[in-house]
Parts: sequence; C-alpha cells; structure tokens
Amino acid sequence: MDNRYVHGYHSRESERLQDQAGTLVDLLHSDTSYPAGSTVLEVGCGTGAQTITLACNSPTARFIAVDISADSLKEASARAGDAGLTNVELRQGDIFALPFSPESFDHVFVCFVLEHLSRPLEALALLRGLLRPGGTITVIEGDHGSAYFHPDSAAARNAIQCQVELQRMAGGNAMIGRQVYPLLVDAGFDSVRVSPRMVYVDSSRPELVDGFTRKTFTAMIEGVRDVAIAAHIVEPDLFDAGIQALYRTAEVDGVFCYTFFKAVGEKTCRA
Amino acid sequence: MDNRYVHGYHSRESERLQDQAGTLVDLLHSDTSYPAGSTVLEVGCGTGAQTITLACNSPTARFIAVDISADSLKEASARAGDAGLTNVELRQGDIFALPFSPESFDHVFVCFVLEHLSRPLEALALLRGLLRPGGTITVIEGDHGSAYFHPDSAAARNAIQCQVELQRMAGGNAMIGRQVYPLLVDAGFDSVRVSPRMVYVDSSRPELVDGFTRKTFTAMIEGVRDVAIAAHIVEPDLFDAGIQALYRTAEVDGVFCYTFFKAVGEKTCRA
Repeated sequence: MDNRYVHGYHSRESERLQDQAGTLVDLLHSDTSYPAGSTVLEVGCGTGAQTITLACNSPTARFIAVDISADSLKEASARAGDAGLTNVELRQGDIFALPFSPESFDHVFVCFVLEHLSRPLEALALLRGLLRPGGTITVIEGDHGSAYFHPDSAAARNAIQCQVELQRMAGGNAMIGRQVYPLLVDAGFDSVRVSPRMVYVDSSRPELVDGFTRKTFTAMIEGVRDVAIAAHIVEPDLFDAGIQALYRTAEVDGVFCYTFFKAVGEKTCRA
Repeated sequence: MDNRYVHGYHSRESERLQDQAGTLVDLLHSDTSYPAGSTVLEVGCGTGAQTITLACNSPTARFIAVDISADSLKEASARAGDAGLTNVELRQGDIFALPFSPESFDHVFVCFVLEHLSRPLEALALLRGLLRPGGTITVIEGDHGSAYFHPDSAAARNAIQCQVELQRMAGGNAMIGRQVYPLLVDAGFDSVRVSPRMVYVDSSRPELVDGFTRKTFTAMIEGVRDVAIAAHIVEPDLFDAGIQALYRTAEVDGVFCYTFFKAVGEKTCRA
C-alpha cells in the first residue's frame, strides 16, 4: 500500500475525526495549556481537529501546525478561520524533514500521528532536536488492543483486528498507545509521565454511546470494510457480523471500553 | 471441579490477595465511606482484606462481613483484631442463603465475589432484598480481558486465558468487570454508576511494577499452572513461556494495563 494512512484522508473520515475530537476533547485535551508567548509545534495536525482546541485553550501561545497533506491543511485553515484564531500558522511538511532550526520550539504536540509511522522512534528523536532544552513534548495515541466490550464477540474482535492488520501493512501500529512510555524514554526524553484516558461507555452515558461507540469507534472500523475485503484479510460476512456485534454493544445493556494514552516528556536542560 | 473458587483458599494466595489490597487500596476504596450509625453488609469478605480498609475508612459505621469459608473468616477475625477494629462482626454464610431479614441493611458491599458465581444476577437480586429502600450497593470486580501489555505476547495472552477458562469451568466469569452495569440494572438497582479503575504500570511507577504486575497479576496467573496443566487446557512449555512474557512486561521498557470496575447502585425508595 502506497498510502501510509489507513484513515484520515476522506471526507467522511474527516467528519468522523471531527466528531471524535468533539466527543473526546475534554478527556484528551483539557489538561494541556501553554504559557503566554511560548511557541508550540504541532506535527501531523491533519484537518486541525486538535489544533483548534489547543489554540483556543492557550490563546496567548503561538502554534505552528504542520501536516504532509495540502488538502488537510486547506480544511484546517478554513476551520482556524471559522474559529477566528490568529495564533495558528499552518505549514506543509514531512515529519522526517521539517524545515525548522534546532531547538526552535518551546513545546511539541503530537496526536494520533505515531500510529501511522513505520519509524516512530526516529520521528520522536527528530522532534526532540527541535525542542529547546527545558521544553516538553505531549503525545496522544489510541490503542486498538485496549478495546473490549459487552457482549463480547469474536467477530467484533476480528473486525477490529482487520483495522490493526491494515495499519500494520501500511507500516503503522494501531496498538502503539501502550508503547508511548518506552518510545519517549528511548527517544531521549526525561521525566516521562503517561496518563491513560479510558473511555468507558454504558447506557447511562448516552452521549458517549452515540458519539464514541457508534460514530467514532465502530464507524472507523466499518470504514475499512472494502479495503479489508479487497486485501483478502476477511470474508464480507464475517466482517459484517463483527460490525453488527460492535453496534450491539451500543444497545441498552451493552458496554464499550477504549483507552487513549497521553504522555508528557521533557528535554532536560544541559548541565 | 467441586471448588467454585479458582483462587483465594491457599496461604500463598491469601498473601497475594493481601498484597493486592495493599497496592490497590487507594485506587479501589478511597472513595467509599459510610455515614455514622449505618449498617453495612459485606458479602464474600474472604480473609478480610477489604473489610479492614472499609471499617477503618468508616469507623462509625457497623460492618457485618460474611463469607462461606470458616478458614477465611478465622483469618479475617485475626486481622480485624490486629487492626483493633470493634465495628466489624464476622459471620459464616452462603450468599444465596443469608440469615438476615429483608431490608435490614443500609448498604451492601461486594468485592471480587460476582466473578466466582454461576448466578451473579440472582445473587444481586437477593442482596437488593436485604437493602432498605434508599440504600446502596457497591460492587468491585476485575476483568481479565482488560489486561494488555508491552511487549505484547500471544503466549502471555494464552496463559491469562487459562485462568479465564478455569474460572469458567468452575462456573465463574473472570471477565465480569465489564458487565457490572447491566447486571446491577437487571437486578433492579437504580442510578447505577460505574467508574473504571485502570491500573497503568510502567517503570516510572516501580511500586506498581513490583506490587501489581509481578506480585499481583502475574503471580495470580502463575498460581493456576498446575491446575491448568492437569486440566489439559495448556502445555507446560507454552504456559511457562506465557509467564515469562508476563514478567517481561515488568522490565524497564515494559508496560502493563489492567482495569477494575467499581459500580454503585441504589435501591430506590418506593413512592
């Protein structure tokens, strides 16, 4: 597959990612804010779902948000304009060849990006080079191996595994969330602290049943149907049964669990 | 198997459960306290690991702690004595035939018990009958399907599955944690609220690496080795490789995740 991204570059996907950010925004981002005057690099900003939140939460910080896709940046630009943000600068660039001077950022932010990279450790080491000593990196990643549910279903687990396998074939890792600690440590960051953000959904939380179980997670898995079938990693009937079983977990007696991992690491000042 | 309990009745196991309560006590119990003068029924208190914490946290409440095992109760009694507790009364009894009048308790507490029962819903309905209107039930259960780790290992997952299978053969359900919401609702409780308690372990948290990954979870799985082999559900080499892989997750670059589910439900006052 020549496209390293399994999701993120189609308009329905774009809508899904936006819904996801809307539903999860507090859970993932409410504890991230940057001091006045600091310069923050966001790498892999996509259509700006996270960028808008970051920039709104830290109105006196300056954000440079980079993505490899011109189409995504166009959408991000429109959204930043709609939000009236004046502290966001969007730039096209490859995470492995960013056009910035060493130690030119106070902070780096990376969300749902490492999962798509075949060399996440190398990317983190490069980002560390762009941070001034004393700066921080914040990383947020999901982990599809963290998904479990009631009623349990082998077909549902298999459908999720299709997404994991497709992402693996594309060079990524859909189960990278659990690895953010060793990755940041290996990349040279200090004082690494991981805080998992578990999304627990039962019918007492109807906004999550709809916003997360149905429209974020199951819609994402459903979105790889044709590609998974074309890649011969699943039979249509089995995949469809898995999707049915995932929607089943959104019924009144169903439960769905998923965990995102948020990590912060520091680039220690040299002695 | 005539013993419905896969773990809990051997001295090494007893020590393990005690270590577990010590390590996890804040995570699981710090938000449970009962008002002065209230009477609380703890069912399946075992050797009193949770009882001591409950009674210390609510010194002006009165606890009736019941277990089916006289040996466990003897140990619980010694521990309550050592802790100088005067607000705990220990009684032997079967959860399906408790010698109490209807509506005679203000609160009920059940921790690591439903996982061992073949009829958890029936047990909850019986406990509801013992609660006065307006009273609450608190349920805490683990879920072995919530365990995942880095490095991932099929052998480790298989070893965990041995415990799940043994517990299933004994009539229990080692993955019941995710089901506490529908169980409590089906048993007639209202305002059911579940809060998952995820244990996230990496090497920045050495007390959990040792106290949870090694001495609680992996020791528990390791403890079913002989029974699992005797039951022909695993080959010795594969099981041992799984245990090795679980200990591997406690090394410096390893990560281990597990989630307990704590639920509180109410018995609504009749109109």
